Amino acid sequence: MIKFPDRIKKLRELLDKKGYNSILISNNYNRRYLSGFTGSAGFLLITNNRSLLFTDFRYTEQAALQATGFEIIRIQNPTNWISENIKTLDINSIAFESDDLTVNSLEKIKQQIKQSKLKISLEPTVGLISNIREIKSHNELTILKKTIQISDEAFEAVSENIIPGNSEENIAWEFEKKVRELGGEAISFDTIVASGPNAARPHHKASETLVKKGETIVFDCGARYKGYCSDLTRTIILGKPDNFTRKIYEIVLAAQETAIALIESGMTGNDCDAISRSIINKAGYEESFGHSLGHGVGLEVHELPFLGNKSQNIIEDEMVFTIEPGIYIEGWGGVRIEDIVVMKNGKPKILSNATKIRY
Amino acid sequence: MIKFPDRIKKLRELLDKKGYNSILISNNYNRRYLSGFTGSAGFLLITNNRSLLFTDFRYTEQAALQATGFEIIRIQNPTNWISENIKTLDINSIAFESDDLTVNSLEKIKQQIKQSKLKISLEPTVGLISNIREIKSHNELTILKKTIQISDEAFEAVSENIIPGNSEENIAWEFEKKVRELGGEAISFDTIVASGPNAARPHHKASETLVKKGETIVFDCGARYKGYCSDLTRTIILGKPDNFTRKIYEIVLAAQETAIALIESGMTGNDCDAISRSIINKAGYEESFGHSLGHGVGLEVHELPFLGNKSQNIIEDEMVFTIEPGIYIEGWGGVRIEDIVVMKNGKPKILSNATKIRY
Repeated sequence: MIKFPDRIKKLRELLDKKGYNSILISNNYNRRYLSGFTGSAGFLLITNNRSLLFTDFRYTEQAALQATGFEIIRIQNPTNWISENIKTLDINSIAFESDDLTVNSLEKIKQQIKQSKLKISLEPTVGLISNIREIKSHNELTILKKTIQISDEAFEAVSENIIPGNSEENIAWEFEKKVRELGGEAISFDTIVASGPNAARPHHKASETLVKKGETIVFDCGARYKGYCSDLTRTIILGKPDNFTRKIYEIVLAAQETAIALIESGMTGNDCDAISRSIINKAGYEESFGHSLGHGVGLEVHELPFLGNKSQNIIEDEMVFTIEPGIYIEGWGGVRIEDIVVMKNGKPKILSNATKIRY
Repeated sequence: MIKFPDRIKKLRELLDKKGYNSILISNNYNRRYLSGFTGSAGFLLITNNRSLLFTDFRYTEQAALQATGFEIIRIQNPTNWISENIKTLDINSIAFESDDLTVNSLEKIKQQIKQSKLKISLEPTVGLISNIREIKSHNELTILKKTIQISDEAFEAVSENIIPGNSEENIAWEFEKKVRELGGEAISFDTIVASGPNAARPHHKASETLVKKGETIVFDCGARYKGYCSDLTRTIILGKPDNFTRKIYEIVLAAQETAIALIESGMTGNDCDAISRSIINKAGYEESFGHSLGHGVGLEVHELPFLGNKSQNIIEDEMVFTIEPGIYIEGWGGVRIEDIVVMKNGKPKILSNATKIRY
């Protein structure tokens, strides 16, 4: 069971610390995280002692079933749903998610507050709920393990059947079908199958390109289960790799495994990134690792903590994130290896089980 | 060939009319519509004589391939990408999409402009590009027809094999697989298969519920092809319907076909909606048609024009939209019938070909 009251309690403590006595949640993931409501539209308004969920006619029934800790209010009129309801709340400030709410929505909310003639200030915030979401509960970890298991199994089933002449997009589609057959709700992002020179682009989508012997194939994939995402990358080589390919692969593998071995709670995201980056730099590929080491995974496939150059996020126990260094060389291709870990007793514990090539 | 210069020309005329001499585009669909760039992050900045596309390292190569009419600028530093570049543009106002840009992004852009020491005003706009997108070109229509054909075929293939005891979610998954096999990029929204009492909720997702004989099954589905969406609803009944079911079905069918027969260019969205609504009201189901008659379809599955109670959108030739009345009865179920039409010579022309039940 997900403990929504615990989450609300944490949020109220945080609001109290910041000096706000209510918050309006517009972000889809945060709304789901705090209430359990999975509909695509609605707002939460959480005060010291009330939890309201506003949504339209399409979702009121669903919201009542899912968000049992909330008072469900159907938005009948888009111009007064706030002004009609805040009068009973005894609040003088509403924090809002300024990195989610649009300029236009804020304007409309301001008008409603003006209309209500109450003295209520609107306070922009960034990342309040993201910070709570960084730390995973036991229940979330159980779901994440299942999600990861689904993508591991789907990857294994598909990757062992890849032969030269398969198209990238067909391989991606086979993965997606397998995820669904295994009980995944969906894939967690557009599957990347990038072969040969395509692999030089970290975010190449699966295309009509046919995979060839000897090339690197970067296969980056994930599943979604009960809303939670997985994210896995393996680099595959059909047949015998040449010495250069083997060398690049070994550098990336060393960079990844060293990071897993050395990351500790208390480090910054930048400290973590630097472990892999220094190995790749020393090997002479300083220019070839053009993205960050990793990112948190949960309801979103990219969330906090952020493990990158300049990131001051502090790594703590019960955080779940990816470790995924890579080397990309224009015209040749690329190698990336990615696992998800959870921090336990100060150290990363690997959650992914999909096979890696080892020479 | 999509004619991006024509689109930019229309936008510039519109900007000129409004008195702005540039616009910052942040909305994903609008960015794609105006530039051809399909990446998930980036901004367009379009002035009277320049077209810039800003994106990060992940997408610069792709942007250069896709958005050939744009100068591609890699965002290196999130705090000065605008201030570094606007100096050369000779502008004194930047319109922005206030229903897309977040409060926080606007704040950062303001800081950059302040930093640049230029006198440039920021002007909120809503719906400028949506208004251009309402009218479909010949090329867009060709793509839409293909998308519609994919969902029609997938629907036919799946619906003729449904038997009592199939689960809603399995039916939905069969549809999705078929769409992909037929060349669709994806489904355009989560497929709705709502049987029996579930069909009383217009936005019920496909669940584990098993479909039964005699019940109505609302099957609402769509495909995506080259970015464009289709949207089709049929109501299926396995075996013989009872008289009540047949009656409700006939009312909805009459409401839909009458709207298709009577809608004309020059009507408002409200006029169109009223045609179906009056038929349903007269039949005594005034409370049971709880959504709008239809919506435009294009790069988004819901876009302008909006055909609903109070909508003042004017219907014009070359608009593409759905006509989808429904009746929903708590505890019993629902019926909805939906086709996509294009306005030609003042009248709707049906684009969907999937079989409807006829008694």
